[in-house]
Amino acid sequence: MALIVFELIVFDVNNQSVKDLVKLGAKSSSSPADLASKTKHIITMLPSHPHVNEVFTSKSGILAGIQKETQCIDCSTIDVVASRKIASLCEEKMATFNDAPVSGGVKGAENATLTFMVGAKSKKDFEAIKPLLECMGKNIVHSGNIGHGLAAKICNNMMLGISMIGVAETMNLGIRLGLDKHVLAGILNTSSARCWSSDTYNPVPGVIPGIPPSNNYEGGFQSGLMSKDLSLAMNAAIETQSSTPLGSLAYNFYKQMSNQGYAKKDMGYVYEYLKNLEK
Amino acid sequence: MALIVFELIVFDVNNQSVKDLVKLGAKSSSSPADLASKTKHIITMLPSHPHVNEVFTSKSGILAGIQKETQCIDCSTIDVVASRKIASLCEEKMATFNDAPVSGGVKGAENATLTFMVGAKSKKDFEAIKPLLECMGKNIVHSGNIGHGLAAKICNNMMLGISMIGVAETMNLGIRLGLDKHVLAGILNTSSARCWSSDTYNPVPGVIPGIPPSNNYEGGFQSGLMSKDLSLAMNAAIETQSSTPLGSLAYNFYKQMSNQGYAKKDMGYVYEYLKNLEK
Amino acid sequence: MALIVFELIVFDVNNQSVKDLVKLGAKSSSSPADLASKTKHIITMLPSHPHVNEVFTSKSGILAGIQKETQCIDCSTIDVVASRKIASLCEEKMATFNDAPVSGGVKGAENATLTFMVGAKSKKDFEAIKPLLECMGKNIVHSGNIGHGLAAKICNNMMLGISMIGVAETMNLGIRLGLDKHVLAGILNTSSARCWSSDTYNPVPGVIPGIPPSNNYEGGFQSGLMSKDLSLAMNAAIETQSSTPLGSLAYNFYKQMSNQGYAKKDMGYVYEYLKNLEK
Amino acid sequence: MALIVFELIVFDVNNQSVKDLVKLGAKSSSSPADLASKTKHIITMLPSHPHVNEVFTSKSGILAGIQKETQCIDCSTIDVVASRKIASLCEEKMATFNDAPVSGGVKGAENATLTFMVGAKSKKDFEAIKPLLECMGKNIVHSGNIGHGLAAKICNNMMLGISMIGVAETMNLGIRLGLDKHVLAGILNTSSARCWSSDTYNPVPGVIPGIPPSNNYEGGFQSGLMSKDLSLAMNAAIETQSSTPLGSLAYNFYKQMSNQGYAKKDMGYVYEYLKNLEK
Repeated sequence: MALIVFELIVFDVNNQSVKDLVKLGAKSSSSPADLASKTKHIITMLPSHPHVNEVFTSKSGILAGIQKETQCIDCSTIDVVASRKIASLCEEKMATFNDAPVSGGVKGAENATLTFMVGAKSKKDFEAIKPLLECMGKNIVHSGNIGHGLAAKICNNMMLGISMIGVAETMNLGIRLGLDKHVLAGILNTSSARCWSSDTYNPVPGVIPGIPPSNNYEGGFQSGLMSKDLSLAMNAAIETQSSTPLGSLAYNFYKQMSNQGYAKKDMGYVYEYLKNLEK
Repeated sequence: MALIVFELIVFDVNNQSVKDLVKLGAKSSSSPADLASKTKHIITMLPSHPHVNEVFTSKSGILAGIQKETQCIDCSTIDVVASRKIASLCEEKMATFNDAPVSGGVKGAENATLTFMVGAKSKKDFEAIKPLLECMGKNIVHSGNIGHGLAAKICNNMMLGISMIGVAETMNLGIRLGLDKHVLAGILNTSSARCWSSDTYNPVPGVIPGIPPSNNYEGGFQSGLMSKDLSLAMNAAIETQSSTPLGSLAYNFYKQMSNQGYAKKDMGYVYEYLKNLEK
Repeated sequence: MALIVFELIVFDVNNQSVKDLVKLGAKSSSSPADLASKTKHIITMLPSHPHVNEVFTSKSGILAGIQKETQCIDCSTIDVVASRKIASLCEEKMATFNDAPVSGGVKGAENATLTFMVGAKSKKDFEAIKPLLECMGKNIVHSGNIGHGLAAKICNNMMLGISMIGVAETMNLGIRLGLDKHVLAGILNTSSARCWSSDTYNPVPGVIPGIPPSNNYEGGFQSGLMSKDLSLAMNAAIETQSSTPLGSLAYNFYKQMSNQGYAKKDMGYVYEYLKNLEK
Repeated sequence: MALIVFELIVFDVNNQSVKDLVKLGAKSSSSPADLASKTKHIITMLPSHPHVNEVFTSKSGILAGIQKETQCIDCSTIDVVASRKIASLCEEKMATFNDAPVSGGVKGAENATLTFMVGAKSKKDFEAIKPLLECMGKNIVHSGNIGHGLAAKICNNMMLGISMIGVAETMNLGIRLGLDKHVLAGILNTSSARCWSSDTYNPVPGVIPGIPPSNNYEGGFQSGLMSKDLSLAMNAAIETQSSTPLGSLAYNFYKQMSNQGYAKKDMGYVYEYLKNLEK
């Protein structure tokens, strides 16, 4: 296996983050525009659409310094429509924009086992950026055209949100009917109810050791972030006039839980939220 | 492997069914009571609670002829409370009642690969009936006490109902966003949205060849039966005061679909029902 | 207006309640059976189906002492099917059973302004019991045959449960959008969103003075009782295979709220439960 | 009563509409910019946000010709955020923008009995435009600041969408339980389930003569438009992170109904869609 070494130029509004990486050998830059003038491969990962917008379109933003034939790779999880707008701005500058949202969490990032769902205009573009993503992830999937990386991520997380609540209410019902939680999980996991939310991330404490639901729902994927991802799915459903009865209900469930003060709890907290506290 | 041969005495309201089995070597009986007087192992499998009730409690029913120490095995999918009532009537006659609902469909029955979820009062009872069930199934699980076989089946099918609709709306949303159905299914199946309803029984025609959704939703598990099984889950949720927001919505979905004339369609038909016909 | 005076014979498991009424001029009885042997008009009002069952069918129950041509009037809010079973037991004794559930609350009872929804086999039966109900209520409606009083009450309360949550989420959305709560309520109350839950019992504190939502959700109609009434609607929907998507969601909402410790709070508490606590 | 006469200058992409009004005495204009240069009171009413955007911001749009101190009154039902963006563009031109969505339908327009929900920055602005709106409507409400007219309209229609489905499923359940539709409606209308969707626009054919549900669901408020209005409520709920479980379900219900080909049917068609066709 050949070792490929990439030079890294970094920028962040948090100076300390930049310093930490410079210590490890990265070069710093004075602004996104400055950074863009020094490389033809730019990776961005930001919390939400307005941040992405600012980093690309502000006075000292990427688009102010971008070179022809640059490959932009945005790993943020944001709205499909918003993402495509940035893509067309890049195109005007003869650069290419690819959406490449990620799943796998902090652990996946540390171990370079992330999954990237990539929206790229052509197989050529996809192949061009794949080696970069392979430094960080294990599973790099070409989901389709620009925006389709995000579309795939949003779809995946909508189904995850649904199945997590579904498993929570199913486990709660079974336990209330007198079933042992391990026996019930065992049956679900070998039958037609089998799913990741049951066999890998069961939300009932103690069913699977070592995961957030067995650790007071700390760490993991926060309910507030699930609510945010589901809001993107809802935008997409409005945009495409697609019916999503369970997805909409799941969204409201996580939103309400977040509003009631559980936004930082792992998504599996739906089980605690659902189950009977009285009696 | 030792071959165990059981003598079979049969009864059915449909004479032809009885005749067919008699041709194959079974003995017939004149009534459930008559049958009960001739064996200490009785297997019943009936469409709904009133049928089970009648077969056990009518004038010529099982309880009229039952012998002490008989093991009753009811494979019907019925209400937990109703099932436990029959169990206590059996107990009054010094007999034992076990609920053992089944999953695996017609194919599972023909190939003796069914799964039985068994509610039995003791490990001893479970072991006593296990050899009989092994003639018909491959996976015989002791779910707990009487009623817990049904509880497990109801829980499994509630989760199945939820995830089938969830996958349908997720696939529909993704396809409307422009994703290729095979690519999307591939991503879901290797990510946190992974579930039986996506990787084994995907409701979108053509994603998985050879299953009912790829065969005009014919055969398979009928929507009307899913609606019935979900109604049992709803009874259980009312009984135990368990919150089941997605399960309730799934129930209404299948019920409405059945009321609109699609009761005989495979459960995967939710995809067709959901998706956009216009535009 | 002629004054009609009825002799009152009472029974209750709570002796003090009986003593209180005896002081006011009522006669006591030693059991429901004893009471039934002394009058041909019997009014019952009990918290749930098993209580009604016991009062009628136990060894010293009403049916043990009932006289021919007695008019039974059950004001309990219970399951339609359960109610009809008691009705047929009464019929076997040549007596008549009418269901006559009530709405109007404690205040309505004190002021004799209750509404009775009466299920009676014939107009003659209805007319026979009407004068008795008029001593307690203002609005006595013949809803139809036996069970139809309950059916009407269950339907009314399902719609009430839906509209109360609907108004809560509508008011919350409007307030979050910056609307003044009084202005918004005023608009809803004069437009197509107009409903009792908005113009008479608005769940937002301070919109309507003097009602439970303006009094820390104390008094009023408890969320736990709403959950119970909605469970009866759910039973009826299962029984008749009727689709009730919003009713089912409302039921789960009140059930979950009750399970989380708010069962004693007035039904309007859905507003507090829904609204954003954070930010 | 003093008669106030306003001069009318009109523009529409449909020339015939303009000609019709010119025949009645209106003056025509060559573009929105032209029109804006000739008057200081501009009323717009367009189907959706992109149309409003174009009419204001295109090269020959209103903003290209607008005079200082003009009062713009937009009667379109569009997104609050989108509306506020146009408002700030007007402000840059020293003009004022007011949102004034309308309810009351075609009949209300013909009879000048519409309701206008007005978002205006100040009481002075509101008073300035009120006389104009009084030519078309009967009920002119100052809902609050810019955007609050739309907010009120969106809230009202979300509640309407919820209560219409709620009444449909309540009536269906009651009828399935054997209640007469007129008796049931009568009880709901005098009890705590009372609402406009039951007492003024009952969706069951024949309960109220002369309304669209009694006329094969023709005319009235189309399901597709309800779906669109509910999508605006969903945008607002996402924007403000407000929980709307019933509103979301109602939205999906109308969206699915529209997708299945019933977009042109009156909103009361939910009753037909819900009810049992089989059995």
